[in-house]
Amino acid sequence: MPERRGLDALLRPASVAMVGASADVTRIGGRALRHLKEVGFDGDIYPVNPGRSEVQGLKAWSTIDDLPARADCAVLALPAPAVLPAIEACARKGVGAAVIFSAGFAEMGDEGARLQDQVLDVARRADMRLLGPNCLGLYNLHANVFLSFSGIFDDVRGTTGRLGLVSQSGGYAGEVVKSAREVNLDFGIWITTGNEVDVGLGEAMQFLAESDDVDVVIGYIEGVRDKVSFFAALEAAHSRRKPVVLLKVGRTEQGARAAASHTASLAGSDGVYDAVFERFGAYRARSTEEMLDVAYAASRGRFPRGRRIAIVTNSGGIGVQAADFAEDERLAVPTASAGLQDRLMELSPNGAAANPIDLTGQVANDPPMFAKALDAVVQSGEFDMAYCNIGLIAGLPFIRDPLLNSLRESAGRNAATPMALSVTAPQETVRAYGDAGFICIREPARAIRAMAALAQFPVAWDRSLPDVTALYGLPRIEAGREFSEKTAKALLSEIGIPCPPEFLVTDAASAREAGQSIGAPMAVKVVSPDILHKSDVGGVALNVTPQEIDTCVEKMLADVSAAVPDARITGFLVSPMISGGTECIVGVHGDPLLGPVVMFGLGGVTVELLKDVATRLAPATPEEAVEMIRSIRSFPLLDGFRGRAKADISALAQAISSVSRLAAANADVIVTLEINPLRVMDEGKGILALDAVIETREIK
Amino acid sequence: MPERRGLDALLRPASVAMVGASADVTRIGGRALRHLKEVGFDGDIYPVNPGRSEVQGLKAWSTIDDLPARADCAVLALPAPAVLPAIEACARKGVGAAVIFSAGFAEMGDEGARLQDQVLDVARRADMRLLGPNCLGLYNLHANVFLSFSGIFDDVRGTTGRLGLVSQSGGYAGEVVKSAREVNLDFGIWITTGNEVDVGLGEAMQFLAESDDVDVVIGYIEGVRDKVSFFAALEAAHSRRKPVVLLKVGRTEQGARAAASHTASLAGSDGVYDAVFERFGAYRARSTEEMLDVAYAASRGRFPRGRRIAIVTNSGGIGVQAADFAEDERLAVPTASAGLQDRLMELSPNGAAANPIDLTGQVANDPPMFAKALDAVVQSGEFDMAYCNIGLIAGLPFIRDPLLNSLRESAGRNAATPMALSVTAPQETVRAYGDAGFICIREPARAIRAMAALAQFPVAWDRSLPDVTALYGLPRIEAGREFSEKTAKALLSEIGIPCPPEFLVTDAASAREAGQSIGAPMAVKVVSPDILHKSDVGGVALNVTPQEIDTCVEKMLADVSAAVPDARITGFLVSPMISGGTECIVGVHGDPLLGPVVMFGLGGVTVELLKDVATRLAPATPEEAVEMIRSIRSFPLLDGFRGRAKADISALAQAISSVSRLAAANADVIVTLEINPLRVMDEGKGILALDAVIETREIK
Repeated sequence: MPERRGLDALLRPASVAMVGASADVTRIGGRALRHLKEVGFDGDIYPVNPGRSEVQGLKAWSTIDDLPARADCAVLALPAPAVLPAIEACARKGVGAAVIFSAGFAEMGDEGARLQDQVLDVARRADMRLLGPNCLGLYNLHANVFLSFSGIFDDVRGTTGRLGLVSQSGGYAGEVVKSAREVNLDFGIWITTGNEVDVGLGEAMQFLAESDDVDVVIGYIEGVRDKVSFFAALEAAHSRRKPVVLLKVGRTEQGARAAASHTASLAGSDGVYDAVFERFGAYRARSTEEMLDVAYAASRGRFPRGRRIAIVTNSGGIGVQAADFAEDERLAVPTASAGLQDRLMELSPNGAAANPIDLTGQVANDPPMFAKALDAVVQSGEFDMAYCNIGLIAGLPFIRDPLLNSLRESAGRNAATPMALSVTAPQETVRAYGDAGFICIREPARAIRAMAALAQFPVAWDRSLPDVTALYGLPRIEAGREFSEKTAKALLSEIGIPCPPEFLVTDAASAREAGQSIGAPMAVKVVSPDILHKSDVGGVALNVTPQEIDTCVEKMLADVSAAVPDARITGFLVSPMISGGTECIVGVHGDPLLGPVVMFGLGGVTVELLKDVATRLAPATPEEAVEMIRSIRSFPLLDGFRGRAKADISALAQAISSVSRLAAANADVIVTLEINPLRVMDEGKGILALDAVIETREIK
Repeated sequence: MPERRGLDALLRPASVAMVGASADVTRIGGRALRHLKEVGFDGDIYPVNPGRSEVQGLKAWSTIDDLPARADCAVLALPAPAVLPAIEACARKGVGAAVIFSAGFAEMGDEGARLQDQVLDVARRADMRLLGPNCLGLYNLHANVFLSFSGIFDDVRGTTGRLGLVSQSGGYAGEVVKSAREVNLDFGIWITTGNEVDVGLGEAMQFLAESDDVDVVIGYIEGVRDKVSFFAALEAAHSRRKPVVLLKVGRTEQGARAAASHTASLAGSDGVYDAVFERFGAYRARSTEEMLDVAYAASRGRFPRGRRIAIVTNSGGIGVQAADFAEDERLAVPTASAGLQDRLMELSPNGAAANPIDLTGQVANDPPMFAKALDAVVQSGEFDMAYCNIGLIAGLPFIRDPLLNSLRESAGRNAATPMALSVTAPQETVRAYGDAGFICIREPARAIRAMAALAQFPVAWDRSLPDVTALYGLPRIEAGREFSEKTAKALLSEIGIPCPPEFLVTDAASAREAGQSIGAPMAVKVVSPDILHKSDVGGVALNVTPQEIDTCVEKMLADVSAAVPDARITGFLVSPMISGGTECIVGVHGDPLLGPVVMFGLGGVTVELLKDVATRLAPATPEEAVEMIRSIRSFPLLDGFRGRAKADISALAQAISSVSRLAAANADVIVTLEINPLRVMDEGKGILALDAVIETREIK
C-alpha cells in the first residue's frame, strides 16, 4: 500500500473550495466562508453555490466541476445526502482533502454508516483525505487557515497560541477554547475529528506533535479507534520531548457506561489507557481545569529534574496548606540545609526557614527581599522547583512594582527552574507576573498539582521506548492453542520463569513413585480440561506426605468424579509443597483495542478487593517492572515490613518483564495469561510459578 | 464561675475607642479609624492619641482614662509594650471588649507568652473580652462595624453577604475575601482570632452559628485550642441545620510537620478532626476553591434528600465527563425510567435519555426545551439533584434570553431541588443564571463536587447527636489503673462484649484441669506485666490438645524465662481455640486535644499497611458503627465476598458502639483501648474478643 497523503492539504492548504457557501452569515456555509475570509487566508477561495455567481463579495461557481483550478481542500457545508456526489466531484477535480461538517452518518445508525463507507471509498481511491463527517472542522492560525463555522472564530482571531488541540467532540473543543482564552491561553491549531471516517485522533495528534508551531499537544478523547496511529503520535511527541496532556472521559464505571451509549466507538478498558499514557509519558488530566493548568505550566518549557519542591510564602498558614497539597501530589518538601536557613534568616529574621519558608509580612516592607530569598533557595540546588505565594500584597500599589521587577530578574537568573506563583490580584497584574516567568495559578492546590505534573514529563522522556525488534526470538504461540497448566508452565520455563518439579501421575502406583522421588510433603492437583476451579470439586490436596500419596490420589479421583461426573480426568499433578515467600499475581490482559498490558499485584484480597495493582503496557522492561512493584500500596510486604525478610524483587521484576515480552510478541493471540500464585522467595532466592493459565484467541 | 460576657461588645458595639488612632491613613491606627468612620458605624467613636486633640476630623482624647464615657469596645493599634497599660486603663474604664492587633506576644516565645497572660489576667478580672493579640480584627457589616486595618475594607464596603468567616490566620482571611468577591460571594461577618488569648475559634464560630445574619459558617483552622467551645459551636450549627464548611490545614504528614513549626498550638492528630467534622456534619474542604464552591452551593439553601443525580446536557461528551465526576464523588447516576425517557425523547428525538441526558444541539434551535426536560427530570422523583451543562450557547445572543427565562421558571417550579449549571459565558451572564436559581460553577468537576457536598449536610443534621447523659451507669475506670489481658476482658464483659472462657493456670496440674474442663484444642498465652509481645518470646501456643497442655505450659515457662529472665510470670491463660469468623480490630484512641475516637478495621495488613479503617468520635451509636463497618474498602469480606458467609454485622456494630461509649464515659482516663483480634462470627453467631489491651493515664 503506497503511503497516503499527509494532512497538509487540510491544515496548510494553498486554496480552498467552500462548497455550500452562503451569503447569510448566520448559516453554516456563510459563517465558514466569513471566517476564512477574515482570518487572512492568503490562498484562493472558491465559493461553490449553484444559485449565485458571487458570495460575500467573492466570485462563486455553480458546481465543483466548474472550478477554474483544482483546490487543495474542499469544505462541505452540505446536507448529508449531498455529500457523496460532492466528494465524487472533488475526486474528479483532484482535490487533496475535504472537511465534512454534515451530520447524518455513522452516528445515526447502519444506513448512515454505509453512506460514510461509500464516501470513504471514493476518497481513498482519489488519495483524498477526509476530516469528519459530523465535525466542527479545524483551524490553523499559524497558516491563517480557519475551516470551521464555530463561533469561537471571534474569540481567537488574531491570536497565534502555541497550544494544539485535537478533540473528538466538536462542542467540547469550543468550550475549551473559550475557557482557555479567559486565562490567556491560546490554541494555534485546533482540530475536531467527528466520526473519524479517515483522519482520526492519532494522525491529527501526530501532526501537532511534529509541528514547529505547537509546544503542547492537548487531546480530548472519548475512545481511540486506531491504536497504530495513536501510538505513533505519542511516540512522535515522546521522541521530541513535547508534552502531551489528555482528557480521556469514561474513567469510571458510570462514565464508561455513559461513554458506551454516547459514542459508536468501542471504548476499550479505561485502565489500559492509563498504561498507554504512562508508557509514553502523556499526562492524563481528570478535568478541563486540570488539563488547562497543566498545559499552561508545560507551555513554559521548564521541567524539573526531580520532585523536591520549595514552598516560599509571606504567610505561614498558606505554607502549611501548600505542604499538604505537595504531599497529595507525592512531591517532597525537604528541609532546607543549615546554610540556606541561615541565609534566609538573614533576609527575614522573624520568618521560618525550614521549608515551607515563611518570609512573613516583612515582604510588604521590603519587596525585593522575596526575590533574594528565591535566588538563595533555587541556587542552593536543594530543590527541583519552587512554589511561591504572595497573596494580596502582590497587587498593592507600592509593593507591586518593586516586587514584580525583582522577581522578573530572579526568574531570568534561574531560568532552568520551574517556578509557580499564586497572587490575589486583578487579571492584568497576574499576567504581568506570568510574563515575568512564573506559572501563575491562584489556587495553591491547582498550582502544585500542575508543578507535580511537570515533574512527570522528563522522567518519561528520559526512558527509551521499548525496542520491539528485541521481541524477535521469543516463543510464538499458535492462534487458538489450548494450554493445560502443564503446557502453560512449560512455556513459562522457556522464557526463564521457573516452576517447581512436577509429576503427572495417573494412578496409585505412579503416585507412589513420584512421592519417593520428591521425598517431602507435596501438593496434588487434578488435571482436567473440564475443570476450572479445582479446589471447589475436591481436586486439590496440600501437605500430602509420601506415605499418603497413593490413597490421596485414589480419593481425589473418587471425589472429583462424584462432583463432576462428565469431567475428563487426564491425571494428577504432584509437586513439592513450597513454603516461605510471598504470593503474587502476574497477569496479562490482551485489550482488543490497545493491545496487551501486564498487571502485577499481591495475592489474595489486595488484588481482588482493594484493586492494589500496577499495570503497564507490554512489553515492559525490568526497570519498569521494578517501578510497578514499588508503586503498589502493599509494596512494604515485599520490602521487610515489620521484620519480614525482603523479597527477591529483582527476580520478580525479571519475571514480570519476561511475561510482558512474551505477551507483546504474541499480542494478536494472547487473551489472558495469569501466574497465580507466583511465589516470590526471600532476596536472592528467586521465584516460582505455582500455577498458570493461558487463554488464546483464534486469529480472525 | 459566673457566665462570661458574650461577643456582642466586639461584634455589635454601641461605641468604640480607637486607641493609637492616627491621622496618617497609611498607618495601622489611621487605617482602622478610617474604615470605622467610612463603614457607616452609627455609635460614638473615641480616637485616643496622646498628641492630638483631633484625628481625621473627630475629637480625640489623650488617654483612655480621659474618655468622656465608657466605650463598649476598644481597638488597640499599639506596639506590644503599650498593650498591658492600655488594657489596665480599659479595665478601669469598664470597657467591655478589646481588639488587639499588636504582634509580639505568645508567637514570639516565652516572654511574649507571659505578657499575654498578664493582659488576659487583667481582662478576666474586669470581665472584658479580648480578640487577638496578633490578629487582623473583625468586621460585621450587618451592624456597620469594621474593626480592622485590613485593606479588604475597600473591597467589601457596601456589601452585606450572608457568609460568615472565622480564621486563625489574618493573612488568609484577607485572601479569602478577595477570592470570594471575584465569584460574587460576600462575607458579612469576618473574625480573625490571632493568638486566641481569650476569644477563640470556637466561640467566634458559635457567634456565627447563632447569628440570623449568617447562612453558612466558614472556618479556617490551623489547630483547635479549646475543644469545648469548638464542639459547642458545631453543635449550635447542627441543631440549627446551618451548614459549616471548614478548611483545616496540616492534613498530611508534611503539612502537619509544617503546621507544628508554624503555630504555637498543639495541632492534634489530623484524623481525629475528620471524626469530629463527621459527627457534626461539618464539611471539610481541602482547598480554598473547594471551600468557596461548597459555601456558595450551601448558601442557596437547597439540600438534596439523597445522592441520585440527573445529568442534563446539550453535549454527550460533557455528560460522560460528568458521570465520571459523579462516581468520583460517590453519587449515583441512575438510569431514567422508561416513562421519563419517552418524555425526553419527545422533547429531543435524537438525544440520549437514559442519564446522562443529552438534549443535543437541538437546544440551540429550541432553548425552552431545556427547561421542559429539566421539569420532567425533577418531577419524575427519580433524582435528588440535577447537574446541567449548556456550555457556550447559554451566552449566545438569540439563545440566552429564552433559555434564561425558561430556566428561571423551572427553578421556581422545582424550588426544593438543588440544581447546578455550568455555562461558558461572561461573568454577568453567569450571574444572571445564578440569580435565576442555579448553582453556577463552570468546571463540571467542581460543580459536581459541590453538589455531593450538599448531600452530606442533611444526613448529618437528621442524625441526632449522642445523648451524653446516656453514658451514666457505664463502668468508671480509675485514673492510672493498670490492666492485664484478663482484667481488660473482664471490663469488656461488663459492657456486653463476650470473651471466650479462660482459665488462669500456674502449673502443669492446674493446666491439666483446665484442659479437661475445656475438652477441645486450646490456646495458651503467658501472663506477665513485663511482656508486651508474647509471641516474640515463645509465650503463645495454639491448637494445644488436652493431652499436651501440661507439657506445653512447662515448656512455655522455660522458654519465656530463658528469653526474658527478669519477667514476672503470673501464670498462663488457657482458652478454647476459636475457629471460623473474621478477625477485626476495634480500638479507641484518646486524643489529648479532641477526646476519644473509636476505630474499626479488619485484622492484618489492611489496617496496618493500607490504612483501611473507619474512625468516629466517641460515643458512636450502633447506627454510626454500621456506617463505619460499611465504609471500609474491605467491607465485602464481611458481606459474603466470593461465597464467604456473611458476618454478624449487628453484633459487631453493637460492640463498636459499646467500646466507644465506655471510652466516652472515661474520656479523661483512657489513652488506648484495643481489641485485637475481635473475632466476628457468621451472621447471628455473635463476636468474641480474643485479646484486649487497655492503657490509662493518671489524671493531671
